[in-house]
Amino acid sequence: MGNSLGKLFTITSFGESHGRCVGIIVDGCPAGLPLTESDIQREVDKRKPGTSIAATKRAEEDKVEVFSGTFNRVTTGAPICLLIQNKDIDSTAYEKARFLARPGHADYTAFSKYGGFNDFRGGGIFSGRITAAFVMAGAVAKKLLGTIDVEVLAHTVELGGVKAEPKEIDQIRANTAKNQFRCADPKAAAEMAEVVEKVKREDDSLGGIIEGIALNMPVGLGEPVFDTLEGDMAKALFAIPAVKGVEFGSGFSAARKRGSENNDPFTIKNGEVVTVTNNAGGVLGGISNGMPLVVRAAIKPTSSIAKSQQTVDFKDMKNAALKVAGRHDVCIVPRAVVVVESMMAVTLCDFAMRAELIPRALK
Amino acid sequence: MGNSLGKLFTITSFGESHGRCVGIIVDGCPAGLPLTESDIQREVDKRKPGTSIAATKRAEEDKVEVFSGTFNRVTTGAPICLLIQNKDIDSTAYEKARFLARPGHADYTAFSKYGGFNDFRGGGIFSGRITAAFVMAGAVAKKLLGTIDVEVLAHTVELGGVKAEPKEIDQIRANTAKNQFRCADPKAAAEMAEVVEKVKREDDSLGGIIEGIALNMPVGLGEPVFDTLEGDMAKALFAIPAVKGVEFGSGFSAARKRGSENNDPFTIKNGEVVTVTNNAGGVLGGISNGMPLVVRAAIKPTSSIAKSQQTVDFKDMKNAALKVAGRHDVCIVPRAVVVVESMMAVTLCDFAMRAELIPRALK
Amino acid sequence: MGNSLGKLFTITSFGESHGRCVGIIVDGCPAGLPLTESDIQREVDKRKPGTSIAATKRAEEDKVEVFSGTFNRVTTGAPICLLIQNKDIDSTAYEKARFLARPGHADYTAFSKYGGFNDFRGGGIFSGRITAAFVMAGAVAKKLLGTIDVEVLAHTVELGGVKAEPKEIDQIRANTAKNQFRCADPKAAAEMAEVVEKVKREDDSLGGIIEGIALNMPVGLGEPVFDTLEGDMAKALFAIPAVKGVEFGSGFSAARKRGSENNDPFTIKNGEVVTVTNNAGGVLGGISNGMPLVVRAAIKPTSSIAKSQQTVDFKDMKNAALKVAGRHDVCIVPRAVVVVESMMAVTLCDFAMRAELIPRALK
Amino acid sequence: MGNSLGKLFTITSFGESHGRCVGIIVDGCPAGLPLTESDIQREVDKRKPGTSIAATKRAEEDKVEVFSGTFNRVTTGAPICLLIQNKDIDSTAYEKARFLARPGHADYTAFSKYGGFNDFRGGGIFSGRITAAFVMAGAVAKKLLGTIDVEVLAHTVELGGVKAEPKEIDQIRANTAKNQFRCADPKAAAEMAEVVEKVKREDDSLGGIIEGIALNMPVGLGEPVFDTLEGDMAKALFAIPAVKGVEFGSGFSAARKRGSENNDPFTIKNGEVVTVTNNAGGVLGGISNGMPLVVRAAIKPTSSIAKSQQTVDFKDMKNAALKVAGRHDVCIVPRAVVVVESMMAVTLCDFAMRAELIPRALK
Repeated sequence: MGNSLGKLFTITSFGESHGRCVGIIVDGCPAGLPLTESDIQREVDKRKPGTSIAATKRAEEDKVEVFSGTFNRVTTGAPICLLIQNKDIDSTAYEKARFLARPGHADYTAFSKYGGFNDFRGGGIFSGRITAAFVMAGAVAKKLLGTIDVEVLAHTVELGGVKAEPKEIDQIRANTAKNQFRCADPKAAAEMAEVVEKVKREDDSLGGIIEGIALNMPVGLGEPVFDTLEGDMAKALFAIPAVKGVEFGSGFSAARKRGSENNDPFTIKNGEVVTVTNNAGGVLGGISNGMPLVVRAAIKPTSSIAKSQQTVDFKDMKNAALKVAGRHDVCIVPRAVVVVESMMAVTLCDFAMRAELIPRALK
Repeated sequence: MGNSLGKLFTITSFGESHGRCVGIIVDGCPAGLPLTESDIQREVDKRKPGTSIAATKRAEEDKVEVFSGTFNRVTTGAPICLLIQNKDIDSTAYEKARFLARPGHADYTAFSKYGGFNDFRGGGIFSGRITAAFVMAGAVAKKLLGTIDVEVLAHTVELGGVKAEPKEIDQIRANTAKNQFRCADPKAAAEMAEVVEKVKREDDSLGGIIEGIALNMPVGLGEPVFDTLEGDMAKALFAIPAVKGVEFGSGFSAARKRGSENNDPFTIKNGEVVTVTNNAGGVLGGISNGMPLVVRAAIKPTSSIAKSQQTVDFKDMKNAALKVAGRHDVCIVPRAVVVVESMMAVTLCDFAMRAELIPRALK
Repeated sequence: MGNSLGKLFTITSFGESHGRCVGIIVDGCPAGLPLTESDIQREVDKRKPGTSIAATKRAEEDKVEVFSGTFNRVTTGAPICLLIQNKDIDSTAYEKARFLARPGHADYTAFSKYGGFNDFRGGGIFSGRITAAFVMAGAVAKKLLGTIDVEVLAHTVELGGVKAEPKEIDQIRANTAKNQFRCADPKAAAEMAEVVEKVKREDDSLGGIIEGIALNMPVGLGEPVFDTLEGDMAKALFAIPAVKGVEFGSGFSAARKRGSENNDPFTIKNGEVVTVTNNAGGVLGGISNGMPLVVRAAIKPTSSIAKSQQTVDFKDMKNAALKVAGRHDVCIVPRAVVVVESMMAVTLCDFAMRAELIPRALK
Repeated sequence: MGNSLGKLFTITSFGESHGRCVGIIVDGCPAGLPLTESDIQREVDKRKPGTSIAATKRAEEDKVEVFSGTFNRVTTGAPICLLIQNKDIDSTAYEKARFLARPGHADYTAFSKYGGFNDFRGGGIFSGRITAAFVMAGAVAKKLLGTIDVEVLAHTVELGGVKAEPKEIDQIRANTAKNQFRCADPKAAAEMAEVVEKVKREDDSLGGIIEGIALNMPVGLGEPVFDTLEGDMAKALFAIPAVKGVEFGSGFSAARKRGSENNDPFTIKNGEVVTVTNNAGGVLGGISNGMPLVVRAAIKPTSSIAKSQQTVDFKDMKNAALKVAGRHDVCIVPRAVVVVESMMAVTLCDFAMRAELIPRALK
């Protein structure tokens, strides 16, 4: 249990890393949205390892299939089943090391929770691979948000300790796709490449920070006191394996500011209420205020490293050493950028529907 | 909508800052838990302004009343209605400045979302005052967690830029209640006092960081892929007004570490699987691993400041200046400590019930 | 757990028969609905025993109090807490017979489920008294439905074996309030009075059937495949103690018809698609078709009877005889009429909101 | 939206009659349950038209595929995706009559609700075909209930006006599979055959009543006040197209009984509390009392009939005549028997998990 997310735009995840497929059911998508496999494929492809030096060599084709919910390439109002059948599976390494808890991974917690019946191959449902399903749902959500002109984009703002310089939206839009790190700052991207190369040689891994931005935000998304925009989006982002922190606007740095600095003064601009600064990250009282929504997710370094690590065999209950075999990313940050966008889009879609901004049947 | 939280241990918030009451319904508490008003009162009192120099002068008695769900001082399995009737209400300031958006507050977003019908007095449901209701629910949750020996505690680790030195659990337990900042580091607490005094004189406000810890954690709490322990707890914490960031374990600093540093090696200790370090903050794959759960919440500086601020009158749609009158905390961090504990406890309780660790009827 | 109902218009019940109160939280009511205590009192009064010969002599004042969610007599968008404080409580009979399972009642199942901790006095949450809370929620729902011109009304169509003749809507509206049985057929009402008198003298009780009708139904309410209009309304109606059957349109009699009889032919009337007959009871495929919604609920005879019954003492696990003391209705059907209306209204409101027919903030 | 059912044992339906597949996600099945495709196939085969004279000639192979959630033929605790790919599809008749509302069907309501984008072929999600997915979920639920010895069975008690004589459980078990009507009374089954033959010749259709029984029921299933055993089971049953009424125990006939007749006297039997009669159908106060659960569902006559019917073309908004072409059941009652069992099993499973009777991980 716990595999569904969202109240009116509800996604239900299924599938495993080394099972038959990864997939997602999108329930609540209004009828009338043009939607084809290639719309979704385009997004899923952004998550592919590609030629990035940071990424795994697992070369899934990741072919999107629509199993239900559309007719004549348009959504019908029925649940949309989106599926990617797994192809390039090699479970040998996992079978051998089945009872060795890979540090940083869910092997031990999953074994305990599911009484040893969990599908451990490739991490099962705990694999980053399930985020391919998140991206399929995100593709639908983004198209829906497009009907109310909301744009969601994310980019790498930090990787392996290299911080990107803050950039304007136009530059973020223009630069992010141009480098393998999805970083809007080309200079930082170059530095990231160096760090990744170095760490790769050392059989180690790196983390980073992804910033997500939503533009043309309507005022009023969020349903306090519990279903706040921040709370629900944070929950969605923490479903991405490796996310260990989420902050909005000035976030943790707000803790060091004074009220007079951190409060965003209001003003009138083009007949609309706006704020002069955006320390709030576009959210006041758990509700969007119309300014860009700004969220950052901290991504821990990839847990799988070829370096030798201390661990335990939890079947025999004895200490052991482990080098994680298999194919892994030195840093998953670049590939996670589209996943962050997807979880943001899914959350915003749900709130837009709760605020009745997206009609139940589109024209 | 959006005022309920939790799947098996479900809390439903109601009431307003300047309305008749603040209250909460706790549904899903097993029958058989001894529970009296004084059990709850004790927790609520920790949230009181008290004599802290950081706190408001609003002097609510905050008397807890149990309206349903117990019989002969024991829970019955029926929904528990907990209520505090508001007494010390002065809405004058709010009535006058009704259409002036206080920077950092939800005045404008609430006005927009609810078509101007929201109860603006004291911020209505957006007031920190509703967290008194959270604490009542937390009191029940803590008692329940006590039946499986889980202990939840929180403390101030940063306030106004003053960082506390890391302390052992024993010191945290011992020191936190001893100073008005609920800080385990007495030296830092003294510095915090100075900063608060200074900022108070300047009509400004401060933020900080609260760390929450859960001890004696069972392995297996959390229901991935979406209902992760981190995700649901983050959502619960973001319901606390002023929280702008949440991180677990090494959190944002993980982004700067290497895998070999951030991965927690496993080992056997007293016949149990433990980790040598706890960068994971007790959560692997969204599931508790038995190590202490460690979470930090960033609290922005109090939005209400007496200093003059630029804002707008959103009725007349014109710029305006505003000094926020009323009674406010220079820094809400110390009073929010028990609220963080409460939201943690509520989340853990829900997961403990989902994991069948707390029986539906206690003996 | 299990005390909340509805997705967007969510009600949460609390309180007990002989506890401090019965109450309900209504979450999801749009801002901007004029709502006063007297609006709700009017509905609650319809449930009062009054002077009906069928009814109990328990003489609760049942004074409605609004504890939250309105400001200046208008809803704010915040959760509405509605409460009736219990006054006329006499638990003596219950204390004495605590471990004697009253046949037809939940004494034994509640004792088993809640480990003996349930508040048994007056049946606790299993008392018909909690339906006063349902009616408070129904009062809000009816007002909301009024904004889209949907009218909900119910009447007694059978009581103690006496069947009412089918009547036109006008007569149902006109006649129902005129007799103590809330029956649209005055002749049947007279017969019902005779049967009730007779059965009362025999220390026995009676059941009946209530028919609910919703007029001016929009097309499109219901969210198949699981959240059908019939399914959700049936669930809501089964929450009324004593309901043992629910049917829509031709209902159980449909089982004996042929398709050519039971199918409702479509035709055009005043430029709208209507059906010539209404065997479907206004629902096709789980979705309203614009015709009047027609539902019937079977009410079992009151379980509490003064006649001696065979039972067990479930503490000592031995057989026993029992005459149920206390104050009870010979037949609860007349008082349940407004409860049926309320649960219908609550269900319709939720679906109307899911279909975006009621805006989140009214003008 | 509205395609998920259940709180801890949650099923999510997807797929269409003439789309690529029908399928279901089962989330919340504990890890450790042996489960193979043939376990599920066996149940799905019971729903097949077979050689019954009452059934359609559509000859789907209905081959069950498990897409996720098992490993080495045992459940893993992850969501189980069960899928049947549609094979024998002929949509010609539907394309031609697209805008003609078939009386008794959801064509018009679906068209209105989904803005004309619904997949009308074969009725889309409103087809009885989706119940094949329900049966797949039911197969899992039955296996789970088996671990606590709960047995669910259903049989035809009325068809085309022919009533079966009441039979003992042993006879129901023995006789139901022996005839094409799934009727425990062989004599009635023979009469049903005659009626069906006759009505078939007349291009008409028939309805009936299915009784479901659950044996070895534990005491305590059901979560009042809203999530009653009756309410949730009724909701699940109303998701079966054609169900128009649901009753428990004496049901509608209770309305005509006196309390002294309808109340079930308690007694002690083999050291357990039981009732002498079972007018309650095993449910008191919305909670199971340990007696057999007895529920009846009224099935309306098949809406699709070859006889000419009056209807409208809702595109051109004009009256029309219609003979429903395609392949249809004269009476779906026999095939719906296993569907009723499935929805009962799904409901009971959810409550058994809520009552912690089925552990989250089986041994």
